[in-house]
Amino acid sequence: MERIIKATENAFSPEANFINETIFHNANGYLGIRGALSEGTPEGCPSMRGIYLNGFYDIIPMPQAENLCHFVNEKETMLNVADTMTIRLFIDGEPLNMAKGKVLSHTRTLDMDRGITKRELTWENESGKQIELIETRMASFKEPSLFTMEYSARALNFNGQVEIKSYHITDVRNFSDPSDPRLASESRKNMYLLSLEKTDGCSVSVSETSVSGLRMCAAVSEETDFSGCGGNGIGDLLVGESEGVFSLRSDLKKNGRVTLRKYIVYTDSVRETDVKTAALSKMKAVRSHGLDFYYRAQEAFLKDFWNRSSLEVEGDDALNKATLFNMYVLLQSAPRDRFCSIAAKGLSGEGYEGHYFWDAETFVLPFFTMTQPEIAKAVLNYRYATLDKARENAALLGHKKGALFPWRTIGGRECSGYFVSGTAAYHIDADIAYAVVKYYQTTGDLDFIEEKGEEILLETARLFLDTGFFDRDGHFVINDVTGPDEYTCMVNNNYYTNCAAKFNLSWAVRLFRILENNGREKKVREKLKLSESELSEMEKASAAMLLLYDERLGINPQDDSFLQKPVWDFENTPAENYPLLLHYHPLNLYRYQVCKQADTVLSYFLYENEQSEEVMKRSFRYYEKITTHDSSLSTCIFSIVASRLGFKEEAYRYFGDSARMDLENLHHNSTFGAHTANMGGCYMAIVNGFARVRIDENGFSVSPELPDSWRKLTFHQVYRGSLLSLSADHEGTKVELLEGPDTEITVYGQKQRLSKGQCVYCKKV
Amino acid sequence: MERIIKATENAFSPEANFINETIFHNANGYLGIRGALSEGTPEGCPSMRGIYLNGFYDIIPMPQAENLCHFVNEKETMLNVADTMTIRLFIDGEPLNMAKGKVLSHTRTLDMDRGITKRELTWENESGKQIELIETRMASFKEPSLFTMEYSARALNFNGQVEIKSYHITDVRNFSDPSDPRLASESRKNMYLLSLEKTDGCSVSVSETSVSGLRMCAAVSEETDFSGCGGNGIGDLLVGESEGVFSLRSDLKKNGRVTLRKYIVYTDSVRETDVKTAALSKMKAVRSHGLDFYYRAQEAFLKDFWNRSSLEVEGDDALNKATLFNMYVLLQSAPRDRFCSIAAKGLSGEGYEGHYFWDAETFVLPFFTMTQPEIAKAVLNYRYATLDKARENAALLGHKKGALFPWRTIGGRECSGYFVSGTAAYHIDADIAYAVVKYYQTTGDLDFIEEKGEEILLETARLFLDTGFFDRDGHFVINDVTGPDEYTCMVNNNYYTNCAAKFNLSWAVRLFRILENNGREKKVREKLKLSESELSEMEKASAAMLLLYDERLGINPQDDSFLQKPVWDFENTPAENYPLLLHYHPLNLYRYQVCKQADTVLSYFLYENEQSEEVMKRSFRYYEKITTHDSSLSTCIFSIVASRLGFKEEAYRYFGDSARMDLENLHHNSTFGAHTANMGGCYMAIVNGFARVRIDENGFSVSPELPDSWRKLTFHQVYRGSLLSLSADHEGTKVELLEGPDTEITVYGQKQRLSKGQCVYCKKV
Repeated sequence: MERIIKATENAFSPEANFINETIFHNANGYLGIRGALSEGTPEGCPSMRGIYLNGFYDIIPMPQAENLCHFVNEKETMLNVADTMTIRLFIDGEPLNMAKGKVLSHTRTLDMDRGITKRELTWENESGKQIELIETRMASFKEPSLFTMEYSARALNFNGQVEIKSYHITDVRNFSDPSDPRLASESRKNMYLLSLEKTDGCSVSVSETSVSGLRMCAAVSEETDFSGCGGNGIGDLLVGESEGVFSLRSDLKKNGRVTLRKYIVYTDSVRETDVKTAALSKMKAVRSHGLDFYYRAQEAFLKDFWNRSSLEVEGDDALNKATLFNMYVLLQSAPRDRFCSIAAKGLSGEGYEGHYFWDAETFVLPFFTMTQPEIAKAVLNYRYATLDKARENAALLGHKKGALFPWRTIGGRECSGYFVSGTAAYHIDADIAYAVVKYYQTTGDLDFIEEKGEEILLETARLFLDTGFFDRDGHFVINDVTGPDEYTCMVNNNYYTNCAAKFNLSWAVRLFRILENNGREKKVREKLKLSESELSEMEKASAAMLLLYDERLGINPQDDSFLQKPVWDFENTPAENYPLLLHYHPLNLYRYQVCKQADTVLSYFLYENEQSEEVMKRSFRYYEKITTHDSSLSTCIFSIVASRLGFKEEAYRYFGDSARMDLENLHHNSTFGAHTANMGGCYMAIVNGFARVRIDENGFSVSPELPDSWRKLTFHQVYRGSLLSLSADHEGTKVELLEGPDTEITVYGQKQRLSKGQCVYCKKV
Repeated sequence: MERIIKATENAFSPEANFINETIFHNANGYLGIRGALSEGTPEGCPSMRGIYLNGFYDIIPMPQAENLCHFVNEKETMLNVADTMTIRLFIDGEPLNMAKGKVLSHTRTLDMDRGITKRELTWENESGKQIELIETRMASFKEPSLFTMEYSARALNFNGQVEIKSYHITDVRNFSDPSDPRLASESRKNMYLLSLEKTDGCSVSVSETSVSGLRMCAAVSEETDFSGCGGNGIGDLLVGESEGVFSLRSDLKKNGRVTLRKYIVYTDSVRETDVKTAALSKMKAVRSHGLDFYYRAQEAFLKDFWNRSSLEVEGDDALNKATLFNMYVLLQSAPRDRFCSIAAKGLSGEGYEGHYFWDAETFVLPFFTMTQPEIAKAVLNYRYATLDKARENAALLGHKKGALFPWRTIGGRECSGYFVSGTAAYHIDADIAYAVVKYYQTTGDLDFIEEKGEEILLETARLFLDTGFFDRDGHFVINDVTGPDEYTCMVNNNYYTNCAAKFNLSWAVRLFRILENNGREKKVREKLKLSESELSEMEKASAAMLLLYDERLGINPQDDSFLQKPVWDFENTPAENYPLLLHYHPLNLYRYQVCKQADTVLSYFLYENEQSEEVMKRSFRYYEKITTHDSSLSTCIFSIVASRLGFKEEAYRYFGDSARMDLENLHHNSTFGAHTANMGGCYMAIVNGFARVRIDENGFSVSPELPDSWRKLTFHQVYRGSLLSLSADHEGTKVELLEGPDTEITVYGQKQRLSKGQCVYCKKV
């Protein structure tokens, strides 16, 4: 399978161009660069031109229409930083403009093995002069501060002057749309230029944010290559008050070519003490290594990545490729330091303002835990670093103990402006706890548990202990929280939340006992002043947790009043009124049985042993009818649970919707960024869905059941330090231990022990 | 009982002064003038200097922190209009300043028979010169556009120049406090001056609001009186760019006096086409009549008012006077045209931004319905005038039929920024319907029902029919609404709301049948395209309404999950943490059994026949323990229901808290305006509480049971056009028909027929 995504346009399409800004963005977990046209988007055409640094934000006011006690009044927002992607081309003084002249051919390529995007354009200007432009962009995985551009122009049918102007623009703003709750509502200047100068042949800018007081530096350095035109050209850097411009001019003969190479280094004060010194030192190293070095390093990095994440489907090239694209975007989105996490849109756009949600731990992390656990660890380290802020948040909500992680955040503070479907979604605590447990079960990394993980588990368990209580009948009940489904808010005993809290409470104690058995519990016990009686309360609450069941329907109600409500009138809801959240007042939605996304159904994936298969089947059928999938987090989960319950056809259909979501813009908003949660869910739909991989206290198990149209599924997986290759067809599954220590895995319910280089084949039972 | 309130200060107290701005405000239902010091409040001292026109507002942005579909994004706000109350006094060039020199005596008086406030001040300046100042203010009931000031200064111990400068200041702003959700959060200029000129000896300003485009005019005219100093003085009006100043100068001998009379006329474009012409024409009439004419008219008006509202308690002077004060403020707050209603703070301050809530119909209106029904009718006319906006509001909330009145408004649009404890309080519809029914039952005004009342009843009934539905068991249930208690929001089957909706649905049909029996139903049937099946649905829903009852406790639960929650930890809540809403996040409050105010208990007053006395008694005792009375709407209701249930001691105690609320600033926020709902509730606590007046389909009944410490209670009441005097002691009740047609009333359960001048005495049974 060639890991390449291509988009070819025969004419300029503003809509396609807007989507392609997302699809062809470059990112490396730290830097994200939208795939905006380097010469600028033609006037009047939509564009979200932006470059983002993961974890770098400003704080902006978020006044509440009615400011009740402890409401959140300001929020963090991801910033669009200095625009260094702009390069303009002039033919005899006339600028390249996609909306003018004639596009003869235009192809964009994402090469996921080489880690680059490429744009190939043949364009004729209004005077009939044709030019070929080849532009390569890369966000380096080797050096996360580095973004590179290679820009090459060839005169196809004329002799004349070609000028290439490469910019470093410091006066930038964020994208805004007051009509869409998922975007910033106000255009606002958040960054102020402290200095812009020419140093070591680079233009170097240092800017500071208005409120958070963070600094960032951009250093830009250009190289010219006149070899394609016999050395005929000059290049020159001019640095003005707010812009640096490097101009390259060449008198080209027909077929003559000029090339500009642009090295761009970003640093920020979240990570560096002196952003300028750090940027210049990195730039020095970058220039001494040269572009080819980084191209090669990129390939090597990705070779390793794909080796650990390899996934091949025989019989379904399109969805295979779509899944690889999703995995690649996840890699682009995921941090490798403890200063940031994975935003809802990764680094591909400004949707949801760069905030981190439960999406990171619940939907995206499993992919990394199972293939690159060091990335999963970085994300969990980030959460741990914000634990004190989560404790403050819990105190603001009136809790005497525990930590409540924010529903949306960058730096760790709660940034939700509407607590009803934000802060009230307490399940985020249990979702993070779940990710910690799964990380431990997959890696066996007890050091992490001792240092950080158990503290997270205990503080989140404490929150649930403080939120819920034992009712008259001895059940542990949790009131006034919001589950995953945001079309029903502030309810009692949300089935998902209670399952999640049960797990959280139980595993807080279980992992504590594991530490204890290893003599490593002391630190966390002392730090948290933990008592045995508190642990036994946690066990008791977990055991007594109320998991609602409706006798009449034989299903799990989403919450204690959900089934009492009438079902939404789907028949009389016109297609253009979806997603419902953009057309109906929330109070209207709250009053009906209608789900934005998997809620109870999600619990059947994560907490599958709480119910019998029959109950889950009936529930699945019930919720399927009333779920709109208006949330991008929904179809992947429905696919996984359909697989689990043997609904093969549905599993494949939902998987298809999930796999193609961004490439085909199924939610009509991929323009604002990719849906990373869905991308992670798409991966899980294959690995946990079709292949039925489970990693839990009983170890690693797999029992694939492929979609009928698939001939074979092969994927790699990292379990307890060993790299496994699993290959399944309709008859059976082959497992090979490619690297690492001996390991035991369960295939179709049968335990198998493997050493390096060993291979077992098990027939389906 | 002398109807006079006095406040004497021996020294200047900024706190007392701030409260007195409310207590001694002047208003007549159209104009409201805070009792701020005419010379200005000393620097650094708190003050809410303002003049308000009922129903005159601007529209200001109210951006939502997270803007979900159909959230309200702008709101109406009552404006502080041109400051015409400012009068400064100079003794030999030195200004009067309460914070300097020495206050020798300072008394403020509210004379509720003459309808004026008076300030008497003896003050010594830093040079030892003593002056006596007597200032009388009046908001005329005869001419609602008119505010007058009489300002008289006497030299007590010196000969010297006294200058009085009278201002007309057009550059004004509203009060703001970003930390208090009950006040505007931002200081904002909402009015722009169109013209300021000298015409007919007046200064006349015309201003326009920024967004609503409403205009207002202020005309100010001064009269001088130098008779107290032998004609020694001059007066002169200067009109500048944004201010008019009338200066009066006089060289006073010891004991000499000068007097300024100031006529101020306000008009607005809500009511007048040409505000300036209207103001000048009114001013002409005012000046030709002169001040004494209006003083006499004021007395005559109030004589009639007190005759119809007379209320005397023997044995409790203090609370009697406090109640009279409350009634007087209600009169000051109540409109007599259809352009406005009764704001939460009346016209006494900017708390809640001048918005009208359910307070108007549920708490204040009964006083007027029972004493001055033409005022009640004006308020109901106002609601009818906004019915179309209520229909639009219902449509925004997704209702296919019906009208949803706004939770807070001035011009009729929803101005609630937090719908959870705003728009979701659907009971406001039923509260308005209830007021219509009570108005009809008290007055017999079928014309109003035919023209407007029945349309309101049907449209509100339709809303409940569309909101609720018949559940599996055949009950009619109403989900996701907020009851009166704002510490518990968005619940199912709120007991109060369901009772109220039941009444609304039932009476929509009953009054329709009454119209039908009189051949007067055609208009409303056609206008609303009303079908018989719709009417029978209403009857069915009303009959099947779910009114929750808890078998275990034998009480009515506030909603379907209320009793499942733990009780708030009152023991560990420090006194300074009340009101809870200023110290705890709402999500925290929602999770406990804790009530801001009467909720289920209120239904035992308004819908007293739904439960047995035993159930109500147990519920009362239950809710009493968990109600904080953080809302000013609470104690009056607890008093009434305690009376109803025979809890005499509690009834009297709650009544006392209600009666003294503003005069003694019990809620620590009377500075921002008086609590009109409580004032109406205080009246009801006597008339409907102690005297047990009921007016319903069975007519008028009364069966007084006085507090032990009272010897006698005498009050007047207007019922079906007849003025009754009721006089009760511990033995029995005397009823006299003072004016109007023969009428039948029920005393202690026994029917009595009365003709004019007739009197019956009934002994208690």
